[in-house]
Amino acid sequence: MAQIGVLGCGMVGSAIAVDLAKSHSVLVADKSKKALSEVKTKAENLNTVVADLTDADAIADVISEMDLVVCAVPGFMGFEVLKTVLTNKKSAVDISFFPENALDLDYLAKKNNVFAIVDCGVAPGMDNILLGHHNDKMAVTKFECLVGGLPRRRVWPFEYKAPFSPVDVIEEYTRPARYVENGKMVTRPPLTDCELVEFDKVGTLESFNTDGLRTLLTTMDHIPDMKEKTLRYPGHAEYIKVLAQTGFFSETPIEVNGISVSPLEFTAKVLIDNWALKKNESEFTVMRVIIEGEESGKMKRYSYNLYDETDTATGTSSMARTTGYTATAAVNYVLEKQQPEAGIIAPEVFGEMPDVCQYVLQYLADRNVHYKKEETTLSTERS
Amino acid sequence: MAQIGVLGCGMVGSAIAVDLAKSHSVLVADKSKKALSEVKTKAENLNTVVADLTDADAIADVISEMDLVVCAVPGFMGFEVLKTVLTNKKSAVDISFFPENALDLDYLAKKNNVFAIVDCGVAPGMDNILLGHHNDKMAVTKFECLVGGLPRRRVWPFEYKAPFSPVDVIEEYTRPARYVENGKMVTRPPLTDCELVEFDKVGTLESFNTDGLRTLLTTMDHIPDMKEKTLRYPGHAEYIKVLAQTGFFSETPIEVNGISVSPLEFTAKVLIDNWALKKNESEFTVMRVIIEGEESGKMKRYSYNLYDETDTATGTSSMARTTGYTATAAVNYVLEKQQPEAGIIAPEVFGEMPDVCQYVLQYLADRNVHYKKEETTLSTERS
Repeated sequence: MAQIGVLGCGMVGSAIAVDLAKSHSVLVADKSKKALSEVKTKAENLNTVVADLTDADAIADVISEMDLVVCAVPGFMGFEVLKTVLTNKKSAVDISFFPENALDLDYLAKKNNVFAIVDCGVAPGMDNILLGHHNDKMAVTKFECLVGGLPRRRVWPFEYKAPFSPVDVIEEYTRPARYVENGKMVTRPPLTDCELVEFDKVGTLESFNTDGLRTLLTTMDHIPDMKEKTLRYPGHAEYIKVLAQTGFFSETPIEVNGISVSPLEFTAKVLIDNWALKKNESEFTVMRVIIEGEESGKMKRYSYNLYDETDTATGTSSMARTTGYTATAAVNYVLEKQQPEAGIIAPEVFGEMPDVCQYVLQYLADRNVHYKKEETTLSTERS
Repeated sequence: MAQIGVLGCGMVGSAIAVDLAKSHSVLVADKSKKALSEVKTKAENLNTVVADLTDADAIADVISEMDLVVCAVPGFMGFEVLKTVLTNKKSAVDISFFPENALDLDYLAKKNNVFAIVDCGVAPGMDNILLGHHNDKMAVTKFECLVGGLPRRRVWPFEYKAPFSPVDVIEEYTRPARYVENGKMVTRPPLTDCELVEFDKVGTLESFNTDGLRTLLTTMDHIPDMKEKTLRYPGHAEYIKVLAQTGFFSETPIEVNGISVSPLEFTAKVLIDNWALKKNESEFTVMRVIIEGEESGKMKRYSYNLYDETDTATGTSSMARTTGYTATAAVNYVLEKQQPEAGIIAPEVFGEMPDVCQYVLQYLADRNVHYKKEETTLSTERS
């Protein structure tokens, strides 16, 4: 029974803590007493500690006795938290999805002989693991991932609920989107290439560019076509563009009655009320991963479709389950099976390790998160 | 040669001052030295004085020697300015379009034996004058006014430029809209009943409810169907509703980093940059007034169509010309022809005075603002 520290007790962090507490001794740290007292009621072998995770010393105290650490903090503070964990010579699984490049911490992890599996959620995360798995067996020519987490109840205008901080969502909507086309990296404004796509059980959604490839741009630079697009209910992107175009996401403060206000911070504050996922409000995760390439002389296509809803029995949101249980699968794999070598381990690299893909898919299936796999032979000739 | 005081030297106020200075001695007051020095170069018989028009004593000084006063201040301060003018026993023509009910000042005007022709612009203003004129000759059963001022150049998303303060525009977009249907007053949210309408030289615009009937709700309560709708480029209303629905027009302050900010004031500030009409930027005014009713045993329809563009020669905007010259026509009418009795004079009441409609239409035509009149007989029977 391992000692595992979970940093962050938000929607995803608490789901991770409860799942890990089934087979390990877990210590959860967060600044919110309320969140900690709630999670405490949901599992045994689970202890909590109030801690300011922006304070490196506080983190050091929390993780000093731990065998492994899970980082589940908001994106804006994620890089610093992981850096602190690695500095304290602890290995980690990270789902903070910080905007910085995790690979910049590789030297530190190697120096301290620890590893960190980063971006280990549903997307980034599961799509990378699937790509890593197939990349090991075929010459991949195309990778595409469409993913979104959406509320069942559609409330105009945005028809969206943010499972994490609106600032992090706006960050996705403002960062230039990078994808790979015909072997070249293309950088386009976010929210571009808006297309309608059909999904079983959901109907029509829109997909648009966001900067979601992250580590794949470095680790999979041999793949000539790679795209990651975000899914929302149709119309969302247009209304977001109205706000962006008008200046509501600007970080340059403006004067309102002699007071300097950041439009971005103001807008995030306004959207918090609109985008807050209420308790027991049903939401779902939809993802479609397509991997094409040459395998033993044939052009093959593998597609994985995920549709997952809120677990009404436990009230655990789909976003928490699909993201959190991918991370806990990774935790259990490294504890039971094999540890990766020291360094920053992108999820696609993790996915290349023996049986990881199968292990994680089975682990998720055991928790009622099912990926529907389809295999197609496109031609017997390399096109 | 009369002494006329013009309070406010904005886009419309300065056009009014320059037009009146052709035949009168004009004193223009504003807090902006820049605006005053600009207008001074455009006419003789025109003097200027820097004054804070939120200060009743300052107004009293400015108007003490005047025969007549024109109020052309922003809507939010209009009611107090007019009240001060009437308190100082001066008659006025007002185009401040304040949200308060001007008729509340009737007692004050009568007590001091002065008059104020209010809402004396293009709309409200000219449409009221036309209705007053026909109301005198027929049993009006329907009145409809569609009106908008728009930029030639359409810039996404709002495709709009505000000739006056965005706060006043947002006020139009947030105040419940009242209209009369089948003899009953109906109150609906603003921006409702959005319909597409075709106009010569412009193409398709959208029309939606705003609270534009104002004094007509009181003075013309015998007319069973009255509507005033605002015209914008298609899509404008939807994007405004996105902002309204999301809370960007709320007057309840929210906390941003411990600082209390009014969403409405913040949003107005953001929109100022987007909606500012740049110097020499071409805009136009489009208006369609329809008056139906029984006249000498026949059902008749009178329609007046206005299409007016920026005067590129003088750089005078269409909104300034169509609004300002209606006001200056009224000034010249009361000085040359006949003064109304003491009290608050709604423009439709002014329009019932002898030859006012013809006088104002001719006055505007002389300044190249042309209303195209059409007369149709709907049936020889009262329907």
